[in-house]
Amino acid sequence: MRFSIERATLLKAVAQAQSVVERRNTIPILANVLIEAVEAGVSFRATDLDIEVVDKAEAQVERTGATTVSAVMLHEIVRKLPDGALVTLTDDAVSGRLQIQAGRSSFSLATLPREDFPVMASSEYMTGFKAPASVLRRLFEKAKFAISTEETRYYLNGVYMHTAQGEEGPALRCVATDGHRLARIDAPLPEGAAGMPGVIVPRKTVNELRKLLDEGEAEIEVSVSETKVRFSNASLTLTSKVIDGTFPDYSRVIPTGNTRRLEVDAQAFAKAVDRVATVSSERSRAVKLAIEEDRLVLSVNAPDSGAAEEELIVAYADERLEIGFNAKYLLEIAGQVDRENAVFLFNSAGDPTLMREGNDTSAVYVVMPMRV
Amino acid sequence: MRFSIERATLLKAVAQAQSVVERRNTIPILANVLIEAVEAGVSFRATDLDIEVVDKAEAQVERTGATTVSAVMLHEIVRKLPDGALVTLTDDAVSGRLQIQAGRSSFSLATLPREDFPVMASSEYMTGFKAPASVLRRLFEKAKFAISTEETRYYLNGVYMHTAQGEEGPALRCVATDGHRLARIDAPLPEGAAGMPGVIVPRKTVNELRKLLDEGEAEIEVSVSETKVRFSNASLTLTSKVIDGTFPDYSRVIPTGNTRRLEVDAQAFAKAVDRVATVSSERSRAVKLAIEEDRLVLSVNAPDSGAAEEELIVAYADERLEIGFNAKYLLEIAGQVDRENAVFLFNSAGDPTLMREGNDTSAVYVVMPMRV
Repeated sequence: MRFSIERATLLKAVAQAQSVVERRNTIPILANVLIEAVEAGVSFRATDLDIEVVDKAEAQVERTGATTVSAVMLHEIVRKLPDGALVTLTDDAVSGRLQIQAGRSSFSLATLPREDFPVMASSEYMTGFKAPASVLRRLFEKAKFAISTEETRYYLNGVYMHTAQGEEGPALRCVATDGHRLARIDAPLPEGAAGMPGVIVPRKTVNELRKLLDEGEAEIEVSVSETKVRFSNASLTLTSKVIDGTFPDYSRVIPTGNTRRLEVDAQAFAKAVDRVATVSSERSRAVKLAIEEDRLVLSVNAPDSGAAEEELIVAYADERLEIGFNAKYLLEIAGQVDRENAVFLFNSAGDPTLMREGNDTSAVYVVMPMRV
Repeated sequence: MRFSIERATLLKAVAQAQSVVERRNTIPILANVLIEAVEAGVSFRATDLDIEVVDKAEAQVERTGATTVSAVMLHEIVRKLPDGALVTLTDDAVSGRLQIQAGRSSFSLATLPREDFPVMASSEYMTGFKAPASVLRRLFEKAKFAISTEETRYYLNGVYMHTAQGEEGPALRCVATDGHRLARIDAPLPEGAAGMPGVIVPRKTVNELRKLLDEGEAEIEVSVSETKVRFSNASLTLTSKVIDGTFPDYSRVIPTGNTRRLEVDAQAFAKAVDRVATVSSERSRAVKLAIEEDRLVLSVNAPDSGAAEEELIVAYADERLEIGFNAKYLLEIAGQVDRENAVFLFNSAGDPTLMREGNDTSAVYVVMPMRV
């Protein structure tokens, strides 16, 4: 194997690979990236046995072949090479090393045989559809803050992607919850997605996916089976096992009868919550909301360290209400609001509260109150 | 006590205080800042019993007095207040709380009595002099990378500030070493500094000092006794105990007979060292320098993971030399060079190596080689 490739192209491909590789693992080859050069170009493949990424890149291939080297070390080397360098990679079968040459720098890295590299078995995908990267990014990014970190409830350790009847017609829907708060985000159902099996996409996959979806406005191909999900654009393919479990029936958690409507400037609200929460050093800080006509008073009382209070002008026309929330949950939920005001819909101080972004019906958030 | 103060002024004073306060300490009042309001203004005092900072700030004082509150919490609150806010602090003797008011936000923090706050005993300073902030910054910043972190050699855990006969006359000198490398930085002796006792300024003090010295070009007053050192500008006073120990005779470590002269572009050298060091995953990476006429080859050989080599065009006219160094030490020493080339002076592969910044004789660095 021998090929030359631009440093920037190589860096992008290797960066994606080294991010999937597990830092601490007992199987040496899982620390490696599989480099395969065919006549049409080069691919870089990395896996942690649950997720696999393959990045295809343009290169001048002089001799086809394949080998594996440490993903982290290759990434470090390429990162430190000067901008604009042309990098030549040569697999030396005699020494069992990969030679990397750029300008006056040369490196040789230990390799492991390509035959030992675990390539993820290909699946029969039942459903395939295309969606713009921006649509998928919104679905996953707005849901992921609510993913549970409790390993005992493993079926909540991801985002549940499925089809549903949304408020404005058939929808591709992402839901995440940890039992304390829930996010439900809808997008119009893409052509070909109907009948798709619901899948729970693991947290790590959601995070890796971010890099694929951040690359502009390209169309993303999504393939789904009962056990795997695959996202790909022109150069990058991310395949992931899905969580083998049943996502709970979340619809029962979303209140439908909440009528007491509070509208606030989301940014001003978040800043005020952040300020009043300062006086409590406890991890689960309770913020009290006292709401009356067009007036919201946020307060925290921590007998040991202090107290704080802040007043906001809001839109509220219902009867006086006092309700408490975990400050972190309030901050995260308010952080989801992009441009519009945050609209809270309350029932009573003991009932789950709904939040929406202005009049947008495609995203719904639920947060459980706490006693104050 | 009651005064009003601009948020930016308050933030600066409190930021300095909370940085001195120890995060984990068993004496509650050491987490607090002592706020004292007199008619002329307000001062903020914090200490960890080894270092004390006092920041004087302008404020509209309505009622004089003093109290102490959590430095970290006060800093967090002030940081989160909006830019341009006017902040009013009121000590409420009845509730034992400090009220903080700004716009529609109000906070009350638990206080501890000012009488319990340990104010550092004032010293008889034997020597006092003034020096520009930029001169002191250079002395300490260029020396501090070589401070030892080994607690058993506590007398090396700081920068030794003293007077000496420099290469260009009487000097104020800062020296630090950890036994593997050494930095010796000189500045012309300020008026009044002659006869000053040499003091070892602890690492934490050197770091805190940075903030005082970064504030432009003001003159800094330095006072020195056998046990304490004090640095102050118009608003800030930093007092610190010095390390109670004897700094070793460093002059024996600085080679005088090194004649083999290598001149390199410091930046290009540092980048090359960084790149070749990548292939070794060990903590103490040895880089080999093979030097011959106008040519330097840097190389690293790590049998398990790989090898790397890079060539640099340099100025060197002596006989061929091979010498090895810890990559981290080489990087740190090359990082001290501001504008000029780095000039290395070698003797043999087993002897300490000297480095200078171009023709500047006021800074000297020594680094021990290692076997390769």
